[in-house]
Amino acid sequence: MTEVKLLVCGAFNDEERARFDANYPNIYAETPDDIAAVAEDIRAGITAVVFKGHAPFGGAAMDPLSGLGLIANFGVGYDAIDVAAASARGVKVTNTPNVLNDDVADLAVGMMLAQTRNMVEGDALTRSGQWAAGTNLPLNRKMSGGTVGICGMGRIGREIADRLAAFKMDIHYHSRSEKETPGWTYHADPVSLAKAVDWFVVALVGGSETEGYVSAEVINALGEKGIICNISRGSTIDEGAMLDALEQGKIAGAALDVFLNEPKIDERFYALKNVVLQPHQGSGTHETRRDMAELQLSNVTAYFEGRDLVTPVN
Amino acid sequence: MTEVKLLVCGAFNDEERARFDANYPNIYAETPDDIAAVAEDIRAGITAVVFKGHAPFGGAAMDPLSGLGLIANFGVGYDAIDVAAASARGVKVTNTPNVLNDDVADLAVGMMLAQTRNMVEGDALTRSGQWAAGTNLPLNRKMSGGTVGICGMGRIGREIADRLAAFKMDIHYHSRSEKETPGWTYHADPVSLAKAVDWFVVALVGGSETEGYVSAEVINALGEKGIICNISRGSTIDEGAMLDALEQGKIAGAALDVFLNEPKIDERFYALKNVVLQPHQGSGTHETRRDMAELQLSNVTAYFEGRDLVTPVN
Repeated sequence: MTEVKLLVCGAFNDEERARFDANYPNIYAETPDDIAAVAEDIRAGITAVVFKGHAPFGGAAMDPLSGLGLIANFGVGYDAIDVAAASARGVKVTNTPNVLNDDVADLAVGMMLAQTRNMVEGDALTRSGQWAAGTNLPLNRKMSGGTVGICGMGRIGREIADRLAAFKMDIHYHSRSEKETPGWTYHADPVSLAKAVDWFVVALVGGSETEGYVSAEVINALGEKGIICNISRGSTIDEGAMLDALEQGKIAGAALDVFLNEPKIDERFYALKNVVLQPHQGSGTHETRRDMAELQLSNVTAYFEGRDLVTPVN
Repeated sequence: MTEVKLLVCGAFNDEERARFDANYPNIYAETPDDIAAVAEDIRAGITAVVFKGHAPFGGAAMDPLSGLGLIANFGVGYDAIDVAAASARGVKVTNTPNVLNDDVADLAVGMMLAQTRNMVEGDALTRSGQWAAGTNLPLNRKMSGGTVGICGMGRIGREIADRLAAFKMDIHYHSRSEKETPGWTYHADPVSLAKAVDWFVVALVGGSETEGYVSAEVINALGEKGIICNISRGSTIDEGAMLDALEQGKIAGAALDVFLNEPKIDERFYALKNVVLQPHQGSGTHETRRDMAELQLSNVTAYFEGRDLVTPVN
């Protein structure tokens, strides 16, 4: 019997599972919590885990794998993985950066336009025959030429800003440090950013450091013309404060691809008419998911062959 | 009694009607066909008409106004007005170009992203609780980096292309003549353009010259990965051929703001899942409609004061 060195963990689709099968014999666990239940003789041979999902992957899920050396994450955000616990155990972590930047930025701009121009209601009005019967869509707002703030000017934030610049928007941003930009306006704190703009795009990394970073104070500073767009993680925003502000008209609307407790999101979102909701599909295209899978696999192969990891995190 | 020199014709909203009332005493007719029914003594004094809408405005509607010198159209597209008939009667026509370019281009890009990333279904899946119950949105296509063809490289086509360049798209175009561009690929005919691209954006002028310009041959040349976006006029596309192609999967989808017989559009559109439908809202923002109204009024004022028209058509 061929030795099984790879454990596949998470909701990979059929194409992704088949790619692993074609390359390395493997064993499957649905979530990190299920790893301990894998037969001991197989567990002892596992040296690498490929992981997909948002279920917490802590030290307790690593310990049953005594030979573990690599957790290769599917996705750029690896906040589900306790990297400190991995480092303490000599386990390397990799992610899949850059290959998904375009898709996430596309979705951000698409959601901003859909929210600003009320396109979901526009489609329903047209498709239902209400337009034919005489009902008109109310006038909306103009987005081109408006002021936008990018909260988190990493690689994805930059891709979003580059696109919005073509819409002649006045671009402001907040980041830990000032960046090289084409004359965009830096703000040292997020409240100052929120005060300066009407559209506020959250492109922060996830994890404990940015939990609730877009606070009630930031949301209220945005004001009643403000529209929040979040393509990062649900955790980066004080979601309760945002829901209050949306329900009370303290901000104008939101365009959200990420939420707390996905997919079982707060049901208060369901009734909001001024919000575009997406089911965390930022990287959800055939092309990009294939690129992510190939980058994840190339990290695994590099590890098995003793070469440098392609995109290490720790 | 103040002399009434202005006739207001079409579905202007309350704000727009109030703007006219504040500037010039006027009489109202719902459509050009209703002009003849205006009392003869008032008709005799009318020298200018402000017009909004898509109802045909031909010579027969101009003749009851013996002193008519100006038809000021609300909108850049004046295909509803028989300009040749106006010229033959010594009547000048004006439109409202440029001020709406940004909004129309924004809607085009927003619709392309909404179609490509299946955002209307994404919103419904999330909002209905189906995502929470375990249903995932199928993977979509990547738009950034794709090939796009702009059919009609006028001022609006150029605004759309400039935005799509920021999405790293490979830009091709067709126009009566080659234009100054940043290295974009010119095609002398629309079939060649359709063969070269996956996204096909129609930004032609309306009117009889472009009727059915996007023919069955063009649509079939686009192929099964092709997505049509139309923000021009319903008349520019052979709509029956497009509906056939959409229903039969000969093209992948469409994103449409304009249709034949608006708002009573072909009901075959209602059942199409691969199409984003919008109720002709290209210029439908508060900011732009105000700019259009002010430009229309400035043409009327220039005419009444004997100055050069601001944006003449003939």
